[in-house]
Amino acid sequence: MTAAHTTPAAPDPTPAPAVPTPVSVLGLGAMGSAIARAFLAAGHRTTVWNRTASRRTPLVEVGAAEAGSAAEAAAASPLVVVCVLDRAAVDEVLASVDTAIAGKTLVNLTSGSPAQARSYARWARERGAEYLDGKIMGDPPYVGTPQVMFPFSGSADAFAEHEAVLRELGTVAYHGADAGAAAVEFMAQVATSYELLIGFLHTLRLVAAEGSDVSAFAERFGASLAVFPTLLNSMAHAVATGAYGPDLGSLNVQAALMDDLIGHRESVGVEAVRMREVKELMDRRIKDGHGDQGFSSLFELLAPRA
Amino acid sequence: MTAAHTTPAAPDPTPAPAVPTPVSVLGLGAMGSAIARAFLAAGHRTTVWNRTASRRTPLVEVGAAEAGSAAEAAAASPLVVVCVLDRAAVDEVLASVDTAIAGKTLVNLTSGSPAQARSYARWARERGAEYLDGKIMGDPPYVGTPQVMFPFSGSADAFAEHEAVLRELGTVAYHGADAGAAAVEFMAQVATSYELLIGFLHTLRLVAAEGSDVSAFAERFGASLAVFPTLLNSMAHAVATGAYGPDLGSLNVQAALMDDLIGHRESVGVEAVRMREVKELMDRRIKDGHGDQGFSSLFELLAPRA
Repeated sequence: MTAAHTTPAAPDPTPAPAVPTPVSVLGLGAMGSAIARAFLAAGHRTTVWNRTASRRTPLVEVGAAEAGSAAEAAAASPLVVVCVLDRAAVDEVLASVDTAIAGKTLVNLTSGSPAQARSYARWARERGAEYLDGKIMGDPPYVGTPQVMFPFSGSADAFAEHEAVLRELGTVAYHGADAGAAAVEFMAQVATSYELLIGFLHTLRLVAAEGSDVSAFAERFGASLAVFPTLLNSMAHAVATGAYGPDLGSLNVQAALMDDLIGHRESVGVEAVRMREVKELMDRRIKDGHGDQGFSSLFELLAPRA
Repeated sequence: MTAAHTTPAAPDPTPAPAVPTPVSVLGLGAMGSAIARAFLAAGHRTTVWNRTASRRTPLVEVGAAEAGSAAEAAAASPLVVVCVLDRAAVDEVLASVDTAIAGKTLVNLTSGSPAQARSYARWARERGAEYLDGKIMGDPPYVGTPQVMFPFSGSADAFAEHEAVLRELGTVAYHGADAGAAAVEFMAQVATSYELLIGFLHTLRLVAAEGSDVSAFAERFGASLAVFPTLLNSMAHAVATGAYGPDLGSLNVQAALMDDLIGHRESVGVEAVRMREVKELMDRRIKDGHGDQGFSSLFELLAPRA
């Protein structure tokens, strides 16, 4: 993969087969165990370690080598994968590994923020190791299938070297040298999905309150989503360039529509926090003389705090 | 409004051709004029009326018959279409038409609420007329093409009788005998679209704040939308049946993820009102002993006011 940003939906159709590579997996919860099993199934010599030793046994029974400590596990393979519960658990594992990571590639698949990923990249660099941060979009039973998405970021060299092995886990994509980029991707994708889903759930309440069929509405709205990829691309282009055309119609026209939506929601007792926010943002843009611009121009008012 | 807000009707692949039918169009703003032109282009004898008489002239020049009053226009055709600015304008037109509507089908395409549509249906019934309420999802230049969606509701007999003629305007769908159903569909589709779009815009601010490329993110999130139709259908099914499986994972697991999302947004100064709402709803469900259920179970807490 050459581009800094790749679309998981378009994987290389003819991936190079992975050369058998020794790999160590530190952390054997549901996800860590699924990862170790996927590596084993693909024929990689896999060394496992978990703080609670009993978690290692099922993996050893299917062919994994057992390490007695995190440092021993890290020393066993050029590719060292950490997948534990949270930041505190990562910190504990890394403190134990310490200089045993020198010369290796550390791949951290633990949930966490972009800032945490960047701090682990510094930690690895200080010890002469390459660092890749990965996030997991999917559930343990599906690890090893293309259904699970793994955004990665950090060392481009390490990704190039180990991409074929990492691909045994699912659909992988490289998001650039900033170690935090995979976490940004995860946070952004998940948050936008929740925005859609909670908005949809409130609308189902409205549909039900009006006596309409929620399942039939879901079917129709799902089909309507087909037009959104093009719309989202054009909105992002407007945001990136600052050239705000009248997308979805001018704000002058949309503001009146927003009043209708708010009034209707209030009449049936369904919440309208986003509609009121959008209306307020539209009114501010109109007052500032931008009523001829479109929806995406509201981005200008969403400045983060200094 | 643009074609982005669509009602995906599955159009009949071999629609019956419309028998030339006299039709009257009351209201010749941008949308009413586009409607009259579409009827004329399809070969229907079209009578037009507008309070400001100068608006009639361009239609008369392309073959429309001119009526001198709203009642005269209504009397001229079995199919009477009203498309004016708002409720007040509809009320004024209908007061003028009054009993001239007897025996006709009144089709109201004016923006408005479900309650307003139901009141017009009563008005028509009291005068011996059939009533269809329609909403327009699209812009005037596209009227007469399949890009513009027209949800209709009200008299099933009237829809069956005039469907072929109405199809000259765009893609039509019938949403049931409740005259308010077309407006419910419009309000629900548009509101859910805005929920998605404002959530997306906030996320673009987050992506930009983290130094990632907003256009590349839009491309990837657009591709991710492909999984949503199936998810939305299963959520609506859970809501309809009250059988809430652990969709998106159990609430116990999702609540921890929500903390991560909120923490990240706060760290970069991007708003998180929906994430906080979702977290609060999840915490309430968990406290009530439903932590093993999934996201769709939050619907139970969204009760409209009594």
